[in-house]
Amino acid sequence: MKILITGGAGFVGARLARTLLARGQLAGREIAQIVLADQFAPPADLAAEARVQARTGPLLAQCAALREEGEGGGFDGVFHLASAVSGECEADFELGLRSNLDSTRALLDALRARADAGTHAGAAPTRLVFSSSVAVFGPDPAVPLPAVVADDTLPAPQTSYGTHKLICEHLVADYTRKGYIDGRSARLMTVTVRPGRPNGAASSFFSGIIREPLAGEEAILPVAPDVSHPVSSPRRTVEGLIAVFEASREAYGGRLALNLPALNVTVQQMLDALQAVAGSAVRARVKPQPDARIAGIVANWPRGASAARAAGLGLQPEASFEDIIRQYIADCAASNPAALRGMA
Amino acid sequence: MKILITGGAGFVGARLARTLLARGQLAGREIAQIVLADQFAPPADLAAEARVQARTGPLLAQCAALREEGEGGGFDGVFHLASAVSGECEADFELGLRSNLDSTRALLDALRARADAGTHAGAAPTRLVFSSSVAVFGPDPAVPLPAVVADDTLPAPQTSYGTHKLICEHLVADYTRKGYIDGRSARLMTVTVRPGRPNGAASSFFSGIIREPLAGEEAILPVAPDVSHPVSSPRRTVEGLIAVFEASREAYGGRLALNLPALNVTVQQMLDALQAVAGSAVRARVKPQPDARIAGIVANWPRGASAARAAGLGLQPEASFEDIIRQYIADCAASNPAALRGMA
Repeated sequence: MKILITGGAGFVGARLARTLLARGQLAGREIAQIVLADQFAPPADLAAEARVQARTGPLLAQCAALREEGEGGGFDGVFHLASAVSGECEADFELGLRSNLDSTRALLDALRARADAGTHAGAAPTRLVFSSSVAVFGPDPAVPLPAVVADDTLPAPQTSYGTHKLICEHLVADYTRKGYIDGRSARLMTVTVRPGRPNGAASSFFSGIIREPLAGEEAILPVAPDVSHPVSSPRRTVEGLIAVFEASREAYGGRLALNLPALNVTVQQMLDALQAVAGSAVRARVKPQPDARIAGIVANWPRGASAARAAGLGLQPEASFEDIIRQYIADCAASNPAALRGMA
Repeated sequence: MKILITGGAGFVGARLARTLLARGQLAGREIAQIVLADQFAPPADLAAEARVQARTGPLLAQCAALREEGEGGGFDGVFHLASAVSGECEADFELGLRSNLDSTRALLDALRARADAGTHAGAAPTRLVFSSSVAVFGPDPAVPLPAVVADDTLPAPQTSYGTHKLICEHLVADYTRKGYIDGRSARLMTVTVRPGRPNGAASSFFSGIIREPLAGEEAILPVAPDVSHPVSSPRRTVEGLIAVFEASREAYGGRLALNLPALNVTVQQMLDALQAVAGSAVRARVKPQPDARIAGIVANWPRGASAARAAGLGLQPEASFEDIIRQYIADCAASNPAALRGMA
């Protein structure tokens, strides 16, 4: 089985690749090769793996080759994670359209060419999981944002990023209806705790207020402690993508996107969990410093999400934010102990 | 004031142009010119009108010129009606993507270029009304179709046409959010009674069972009399497009699409209305001939629609289907009496 992961060098994509390699199989079939398409080279551990092939460059530029490859047999499965993020799309409208809309369309058309070619008559259309986002939801005068957004809440994107994700959900659905692909869209929650550095995204602090104190650094908290948000750990997020891939179409249910499980947690609960797991000294490194701009952005985000369809696939959120912090600590202990130098 | 109507030679577009010419003004400003962009030449009466300029050719090919024109001042208002219809999109997937998605994107980018050019700093972004469709709605295992679709019903398109309309709604909303245009999307109901010939669309019979009997011809009724559908007369449809254009943003309400008013009517009510208006002999020309294919398509359509936001703009559906038939008869009496040769 040959699998394509777009955005495969990114945080979620690389973790998905590692998980798939460790499993060795997907949907009951042995994984022979994983192609990581990304504008950046993959992490060293993945680059060194015999079953991994890296293709570095913009996805849009890679799609012509993907199309030819598809006509020769192509991929047995695709996880389409590549995306310009929210802040990039707001700063550069053209970049967002190109990276998120044009690239997805080109990828879907490359997969459609396989179905159209007829050389694989009888072969099932390529199964594809598209990583959409909770960012499709937002408030609108015509549709107030519910406290908890459900699978079937009316999307009202407040960013170009959310708009592109929603549009791609519907492209995936229509290419699926036509039989060109077997597509499924899963809306990711805010993935936390992300390793690395603050990235300037308005949501960056959701990871920063845990990651920086554990590394012995101060972290700014720009919003009120009663801000609530739907989050998911990296592990549960990857588990969700795989489960959506492996689901039968009947179990997936229709063609519309589903929400992945969310732990709906307040900032106060996140801080309490940090204190419980890592102690008061670590917790004390979080410094409230209200930022009206960030608070204003966050006020347009859902305070929580439900995921009934994902639950039907056996997916559940973490039981507590403490578990999410412990997962991050375990990951760091294995790969990057310096990230924990702030712990006693 | 200079107005662009894409699809301006089509049935709704030409009627909109005639209505605007007769009014002489839009949103309180005198109409100096109406540009009809269409792949076909406009009807003779419009072609002969001094204030009308026809531009014949695919919209996509016209957008480069529209962009240059925009940078020189451009249009004060746009009605974007051009679209490949449902049947065309199902038969030719590429054509649908090109005609409906690529053309809309190119049009929006042409208007954005004006906002970006900066040469009109302080000028309001171009106001644009996009004609979306009740075809954005449909049943999905995850979201059953309600008996009456409202402004805020979750769309679940069942055709490429409906998918494209929904995607364009969200492009219009995002370009509006960014300040590139002042866009509004209005979902048209099934416009009936359309003049002309049956066009092979599954919905064709909604006009055919009125139009053909009035012309002295038999009409096939392919569905059961209890089929219900949201319809609108040509006049009310045009009135709705103009009201949505003239509304303040506050009155329009947010950025999501709204439904135009619908008369929710069963086929039986349509036939009863035909008998009441035109007599039993005309009514008797409708011949039931069940067609499982068409009945199957129609079963996926909404049985009715509500339009609370449009009502807030003062828009109402016709009071009865008899009124719609009388409107058609009056139109034909003025322009094409032969279409009424079946009346006693």
